[in-house]
Parts: sequence; structure tokens; C-alpha cells
Amino acid sequence: MISMSNNVTTQHKTAACIGGGVIGGGWVARFLLHGWDVNVYDPASDAKRKLDAVLENARAALPALADVAMPSEGKLTFCDTLEAAVTNAHWIQESVPERLDIKHAVFAQVQAACLDSAIIGSSTSGFKPSQLQENALNPQQIMVAHPFNPVYLLPLVELVPSPINNPEIIEQAQTLLTSIGMKPLHVRKEIDAHIADRLLEAVWREGLWMIKDGIATTSEIDDAIRYGFGLRWAQMGLFETYRIAGGEAGMAHFIAQFGPCLEWPWTKLMDVPELTDELIATIAQQSDEQSGHHTIRELERIRDKNLIGIMRVQKDNNWGVGELLNQHDQRLKQLG
Amino acid sequence: MISMSNNVTTQHKTAACIGGGVIGGGWVARFLLHGWDVNVYDPASDAKRKLDAVLENARAALPALADVAMPSEGKLTFCDTLEAAVTNAHWIQESVPERLDIKHAVFAQVQAACLDSAIIGSSTSGFKPSQLQENALNPQQIMVAHPFNPVYLLPLVELVPSPINNPEIIEQAQTLLTSIGMKPLHVRKEIDAHIADRLLEAVWREGLWMIKDGIATTSEIDDAIRYGFGLRWAQMGLFETYRIAGGEAGMAHFIAQFGPCLEWPWTKLMDVPELTDELIATIAQQSDEQSGHHTIRELERIRDKNLIGIMRVQKDNNWGVGELLNQHDQRLKQLG
Repeated sequence: MISMSNNVTTQHKTAACIGGGVIGGGWVARFLLHGWDVNVYDPASDAKRKLDAVLENARAALPALADVAMPSEGKLTFCDTLEAAVTNAHWIQESVPERLDIKHAVFAQVQAACLDSAIIGSSTSGFKPSQLQENALNPQQIMVAHPFNPVYLLPLVELVPSPINNPEIIEQAQTLLTSIGMKPLHVRKEIDAHIADRLLEAVWREGLWMIKDGIATTSEIDDAIRYGFGLRWAQMGLFETYRIAGGEAGMAHFIAQFGPCLEWPWTKLMDVPELTDELIATIAQQSDEQSGHHTIRELERIRDKNLIGIMRVQKDNNWGVGELLNQHDQRLKQLG
Repeated sequence: MISMSNNVTTQHKTAACIGGGVIGGGWVARFLLHGWDVNVYDPASDAKRKLDAVLENARAALPALADVAMPSEGKLTFCDTLEAAVTNAHWIQESVPERLDIKHAVFAQVQAACLDSAIIGSSTSGFKPSQLQENALNPQQIMVAHPFNPVYLLPLVELVPSPINNPEIIEQAQTLLTSIGMKPLHVRKEIDAHIADRLLEAVWREGLWMIKDGIATTSEIDDAIRYGFGLRWAQMGLFETYRIAGGEAGMAHFIAQFGPCLEWPWTKLMDVPELTDELIATIAQQSDEQSGHHTIRELERIRDKNLIGIMRVQKDNNWGVGELLNQHDQRLKQLG
């Protein structure tokens, strides 16, 4: 049973979150709402205000995914030093800016103060774990645990070890992430940007070309996604969807049909558009026209409400993310 | 009022579908369930059996999106000749294989027999309308109307005219597609593969690399989508999602953070993997392991059930695709 008080029981757990922005704050919320005590270290002057906003969203959203009671919230502590945050933590999550030198400095400071048994997860979307581990005091303690925004609702976390991490720590990490309702996807070979962000990067780059070339606006590209294949991908991915499209003739038939397209001279697809100030200004302006009538807070709430509904549909159907949520309910029930 | 009988009233409409496969069949279903008479021409020996399967799915699914009564089904006719199918049709939808020579031959045959006032839509996912129009008897009658599988459920249709199409016919096409519950996205500049399939192509190519390099299986890639960003994309697209991620600092801030990643040396992203027999076999085998315990019919029903639920959630929230469905209910009510 997860302790409801500050008395440390055998299963009472503490997480340290280094960096409390949109991603770090999402981690704080996920741990806290699953009964963990959470220490936050973020030197930004408005860190507390920003974290409060994320927590408010999360408290309104995450419990709506469960059909059983959530544990009582753990204790949230803002720490003045990184050392104070990590000293007693079982899981340390790094969500600082995407610069390797900054991350290395953080890991050095963390490892000088943390438990040997702690796991250090990095929210990096791009770096490989072996890069993060370079020159570390205890490299096998560090791995990538890359979540998706909003972290308090979306279950996916890419868990990417390097060859240096032993199977036991990987398994511990999987168990722990599962216990806070996540879906750890063990990425077996480390590559730049892991799996999901390579896919996202490809779409993003192509989207930039279309805006630059005046083919489509941000709004039109978004509609091309959310009225079509985006609906499919909320419940089946790329390959399972295409398996169905192949029909009775099967997957090989589908690829044989689709494959030749890959050889078409779509040179734009193969090239990176230059991210000029002008292009950035165009995107920002189109985005304002598309969504500027909503505040970010409003958009967050619309998004969360939709995400909850979309996940609960699959819960009713016990499919995909819904099957995961049903299993998580069982775990919560056993704990409660 | 759409006629419930075979008597042609002023608003009684006939569609001709040339090609009755997965895509063509989806068009047949969408027209038929919206009260249109549909003539099908498909010389394949098993065309009727395949179409019946699509219709069975569609009848179980499409009405579940509406909160008002659908029109009575129109009359379905299998025609022995293409000419018989198109003679009296107001909308002619071409869904034949993706070969320009075949499409040109079909258009020539269609235009020798069809009404001058008919609109000819092509389901092509790759060709530009100006390519389709080459050497046509009446090029301005032809445009791309590219739908998404399952056509009877997903509303998106990319409507791509060339400069030759006049604004009136584009508007007529938009009105007509809207009347059968679709979301016509007017693609203002023709490009290879329009908008959505350029994005899909980018993801597909990157997915192939990951499988070829042994980074991830079809199942792992699908999970990376459906437990994470796929859920987001069912309700907001790429740019609106990133606008939120940018937080209070806004879109330009987000791009400034994310942009530098574009210059990373992700050479694999820029290259087309060779689609060898070995790679195709690997994908087919992984797909069998992932989903082979379900028949295609079962997967279709699971998908449709999820899609209906996901769209109905947004209907309740009157957001995105749900706003469209609510508007469509109003139209159906006025017709009924």
C-alpha cells in the first residue's frame, strides 16, 4: 500500500523532478497523483506558478481516466538546491533544456548526491542514452525516459537504455513507470530521437515545406490530419491500419501497391527547409489566425477533455490504450 | 427532400463509382447511405462480394455517427458497362489502380458518355489534377477528390483542382461532398500526393528505415503512435498541438526550441530505403505476429467501433470532427 502520510513505508516512494516546465511539470503531476512524494528543483523565478497551472490541469484530468479511486496525493516540495531534491529520491527525472552540456552538468550534480539505487530518467527527445552517459560517475544509472505532452494524460514513455544499462535496471524502470499508469516502450537500439520523434520530425519537416511553398496553412495541415488519418492513429498505428487497407490480399499486397510511390521524385521530402525568421513568422501568424481566439489554458482544457474521452472510448472497447487503462485500474484497486 | 424512390425528383441524385474495391466501395456506401442511387462499374469477378462486405460494415457504422435519421438508402446497380454506369450520373468517382495510363483511358471512356454537368472526382492519392486532365475531352470536369479509408466513416476528402477548374465547379463539388457528411479540404496548389499523403509518406518511409535497421518492429512503431501523438492527432493536428506545447511563450518560442533539431545529421530521414523482397517479407511477418490473431473483418470492426466512439466524443464536445458531425445532423434534419 502506498503511504498516504509522510511516514516512509517500504513502498513509500519519492521522485525528484529536475526542471518543472511543461514536461517536467507533467512528470510531477503523474508521480504526485499516484501517491509519490515529489521534490522539484527548478531555479526559474516563475517555476511555482507554472507548475501550479500544470497541476491544476492534471488534477482535473488524470483521475477521469480511472474507474477506481486514485491514491491520495503525495507531498510536493520545492527544493532550493538540486542536491536536496535528489538525496532520497527513488526516481530522478531530468527535464532541462535540450543541450548536452547542460544535461551532463545536471547528471554530475545529481550523481554526487543521489542514492546508488535511484534510477535517473532523461526526458530528452533527441539525445541517445550513451551520449547522456558520457563521463558520468555511474553511467548505468542513467537512461532515456521520453514522455509525451500532456505527460499527465498520455501513457507513452520511450524507455531507451544503452548497452551499458543492465537488464535489471531496465526491468525496474518498466515496472515503476507502469505503476504510474504509463506505457513504457523499450527502445532496444538507441538512435537519435528514438522512435516517435523520428516520425514526428518527418511530418514536421514536410509540414514546414508546405507552409514555405504556400501549399497549405497550419490550419489546413492540421485539418488534413485530424479529419483523416489522425483519427485512425488514436487507436491503431500505421502498420495495423495499412494491414486492414490491404484487405484480404494482405500486407505484402498492400506494400507492393504502395511501394512504387517511394521511388517518385518527391525531392522536397528529402530536404530540410531553412528555418528562416520569415518562415517562423509565417507559422506563428497562421497559428494565431487558427487558434488565437483561444488562450493556451483553454486549448489545454479542450485537448484534455478530448483526450480523456478518446481514451475512455478505448477503455470501453478494452482496446489499445484502453486495455492499458483497465489494467491500471486493477493495479490501483489492489493498492487501494 | 432526397427522393426515397426511384422517381427522379429535382434533388434525386445518382453517383457512378468506377472501381468498387476498398476505396471505391467506401464511396458507394457513403453515397448510398445518404440516399443517392449508385451505379457501380467494376469488371473484377469478385467485385460484388467485396462491395457487399464494405456495405455491411458501413451500414453498421455510419448511422451511429448521426443523432437523426439517415435518408433511406438509394438504389444500388451493378452495371455491365462503364457507359451505362455514368450516363445519368451527377457525380462520377474514379477509384481504379494508381496508373496514369489506366486513369486516362477511364476518363476518355467516361467523358464520351457522361453528362456535361457531371463532376468527375478521382480517388488518386498521388497524381496531380493537371496530370489527370492531360488530353481529356473536357479537362475542367475532372478534379482530385481523395478520401481516406474507411471512406464511409472518415470525413476528410482532399479536393484538388488544377488552374483549369473554374470556381463554380469547385464550389459545387464542395457543397456536394459536404452533403454526404464529408469535410472537403480545398487544396489550393496542386502537388504530388496532395497534403495528407505527403505527411503519411514521410512517416511511412521513416518507419521502413526503422524496420530495416532493426530499431523497431511494426508493433512497436504502432505503439509509439497510438499511445502517444496519435491520440493528440485525433482532435488537434500538428501545429495546434505544438502551439499548446509552446505554452505561454507562444509558437515562435516553440519553433526556436525545436528548430535546431532540424539541422541534426539524421541522414536516414533524407533517404529512401530500398523496398527489397526481404524488407517486404520482414514487414509482412511482423504484421502477422502483431495482428494475425484477428481476421481483417475483425480488425475492420474494431477500428470502426473505435472511430465511431472517438468521433462521438468530439461530437459531445462540439470540437473538430464533432462540430462537423453536429452540422451534418442539422442538414439531415432539414432534409428529413
